[in-house]
Amino acid sequence: MTFDTLKVRREEAVLFASIDAPPMNLLGPELVHDLVDLIRQGEADDTLRVVVFASADPDYFISHADIARVKEYRDEAARLVGEPSIGLLFRYLSGSRLVSIAQIEGRVRGAGSEFILACDMAFAARETAIFGQPEVAFNLNPGAGGIQHLVRLMGRSRALEVILSADDYDADLAEHYGWINRAMSAKVLDEFVSSLAHRIGSFPPSGIAVVKDRANAIALGSVHDFRRDSDLFGIAAAQPESQRRTEDAFHRGFQTWEGELALGETF
Amino acid sequence: MTFDTLKVRREEAVLFASIDAPPMNLLGPELVHDLVDLIRQGEADDTLRVVVFASADPDYFISHADIARVKEYRDEAARLVGEPSIGLLFRYLSGSRLVSIAQIEGRVRGAGSEFILACDMAFAARETAIFGQPEVAFNLNPGAGGIQHLVRLMGRSRALEVILSADDYDADLAEHYGWINRAMSAKVLDEFVSSLAHRIGSFPPSGIAVVKDRANAIALGSVHDFRRDSDLFGIAAAQPESQRRTEDAFHRGFQTWEGELALGETF
Amino acid sequence: MTFDTLKVRREEAVLFASIDAPPMNLLGPELVHDLVDLIRQGEADDTLRVVVFASADPDYFISHADIARVKEYRDEAARLVGEPSIGLLFRYLSGSRLVSIAQIEGRVRGAGSEFILACDMAFAARETAIFGQPEVAFNLNPGAGGIQHLVRLMGRSRALEVILSADDYDADLAEHYGWINRAMSAKVLDEFVSSLAHRIGSFPPSGIAVVKDRANAIALGSVHDFRRDSDLFGIAAAQPESQRRTEDAFHRGFQTWEGELALGETF
Repeated sequence: MTFDTLKVRREEAVLFASIDAPPMNLLGPELVHDLVDLIRQGEADDTLRVVVFASADPDYFISHADIARVKEYRDEAARLVGEPSIGLLFRYLSGSRLVSIAQIEGRVRGAGSEFILACDMAFAARETAIFGQPEVAFNLNPGAGGIQHLVRLMGRSRALEVILSADDYDADLAEHYGWINRAMSAKVLDEFVSSLAHRIGSFPPSGIAVVKDRANAIALGSVHDFRRDSDLFGIAAAQPESQRRTEDAFHRGFQTWEGELALGETF
Repeated sequence: MTFDTLKVRREEAVLFASIDAPPMNLLGPELVHDLVDLIRQGEADDTLRVVVFASADPDYFISHADIARVKEYRDEAARLVGEPSIGLLFRYLSGSRLVSIAQIEGRVRGAGSEFILACDMAFAARETAIFGQPEVAFNLNPGAGGIQHLVRLMGRSRALEVILSADDYDADLAEHYGWINRAMSAKVLDEFVSSLAHRIGSFPPSGIAVVKDRANAIALGSVHDFRRDSDLFGIAAAQPESQRRTEDAFHRGFQTWEGELALGETF
Repeated sequence: MTFDTLKVRREEAVLFASIDAPPMNLLGPELVHDLVDLIRQGEADDTLRVVVFASADPDYFISHADIARVKEYRDEAARLVGEPSIGLLFRYLSGSRLVSIAQIEGRVRGAGSEFILACDMAFAARETAIFGQPEVAFNLNPGAGGIQHLVRLMGRSRALEVILSADDYDADLAEHYGWINRAMSAKVLDEFVSSLAHRIGSFPPSGIAVVKDRANAIALGSVHDFRRDSDLFGIAAAQPESQRRTEDAFHRGFQTWEGELALGETF
């Protein structure tokens, strides 16, 4: 497998995929294109069991969706799920027989956060990882599964705080709230995740598939609900207030490497 | 807006309401009357986005419902929700377009706890906040949403512990169990909540409304379930055993400022 | 009451049952037989309100189900629930009017973990308790309610981590993830649980029954789902891959006192 925005390395049953979409790992059409191909090719290879997603940029894991190219990246998602929705693409990953692990250094906001929530588990570097769902600052709602996952993982009150504040959360608080499995020192993160991935990769696939199916039946939002959140995002994005808020943000450095280091503070 | 049991102060999109119903902030007909009026008037004012509830009494936020005046306070709730149930009144607040934040110092037990659970988020002073659902000590069940919220926020085992023990929980343990968003030092609580309220108040309302609706669709118990808990409370309250337990408690200082400082220890 | 594998002691409304099935407290037909009898006799005694389960073996609370005697222990469960499923037996305990508390020292893995999850609450000794759901290492799925409870208690990501890793978790991490109510020092555990049990035992039963019913309606998986997980376990256990994995494990010391001290490390 080779991709433009993913550097991959295979070790036995595990594929390590490092997101490499400079300058700031925006989720644009190229990255979505590659994610679709990786999932497709990965599912077609019976000897592959686990995919670990990491980042080539220590400051950004996935910054968020490229707001300037919504139609394009949505169309890329449609190649796999038949509908132009990255929420449904992410939900597809959650339902896949492949076990997905997010190994997070740097920022994950908006659709970036929704991507790591769609992974089966997520571990983050205490020193550098930063989490946020900034949508309401733009008159939007998390549209790619953020509401579905966060409310179930952390409960109504904390999910409302996180989403309505549109603020940045560090890895320790994200762990405390259940946004991720665990925060740990960057020094041990790589070894921890690699070891866990190989361990899971050594187990037979049919038990794993049953566990994922049964867990998803309880805790994964329905296709209908993912589609609805996605549609509401699309409707909101077309409103003049959303466009005005987005333009203002662009003037303050939105979608620039430096302008988003402390995005939460810019609202 | 002016009320008998609420001191209010408006700052831009945020209303600060301080509960002031001496001697111990019992949830009686007067306070329910004022809460109904505040919600009504607040929802009618498009420029109001966020309501912060605090207490004028550092020892009691809301002690609990006034057991001597159940019919009266229930009738006040009916003015807004058409049924004599504070559970349905609290649920109405959870569904409101207004964002509600509880800023807790002092005790919140019974319906007081159920009120802060109905708020969209809750932050408490580590030094003074105390939480409890003492109903089973009276042969009752939490009837105003406590079961609905606690089971979803902290899971079956911890919710059963909390409710079946009828005991007092401090702010740190309440945070650990997910009863509240966070416990923090009383020194920083006011500034933290005020800053968060103004931040949310600065965001456009339509994205917030979508987020609340979608989160409630996942994690807010149904009207049917709130009504059922409320009815079960009413049925239990009429039983001789409940009346005997309540009378005994009154003899030990129940519903007195001093008698409830350590209510959990009196059972 | 007298049993072969349970030492019981009655104090007022509380029954203390210590699991004593040497050499390692396997959940075999004898222990299931006694659990069925204890539940039956306990429910028939109106003066009994609370059952505390502890272990006579400081290293094993319940190690796991006896893989060599699946049909036998399932048949014992059928005596109470009409179907050969310990998942349904455990679910029956969750629905019982009896309040059940697990006081855990030593290992609880597989069906042992599923038993303490079925109890209404669980407290563990920080120094000695170890938790695990090792099924996927055997090509199996947790079949006695583990998926149903863990996903609801700790959310999708952490439940998938715990189950797919098939690894050992200490009491602090188990508490952090919500697997148990609380971890505490072994020195205070006994007194804490005993005091809580007597406190709950002193409250009238009808309020407690209402609370359990209403909490279970929200957070206890359906009979259908417990039965389905149980059936999937049975189907998987018959596969050659599962049998091969189990045989291999037996050669490495599986189901021996010493071989399971650090079971997670043997996969």
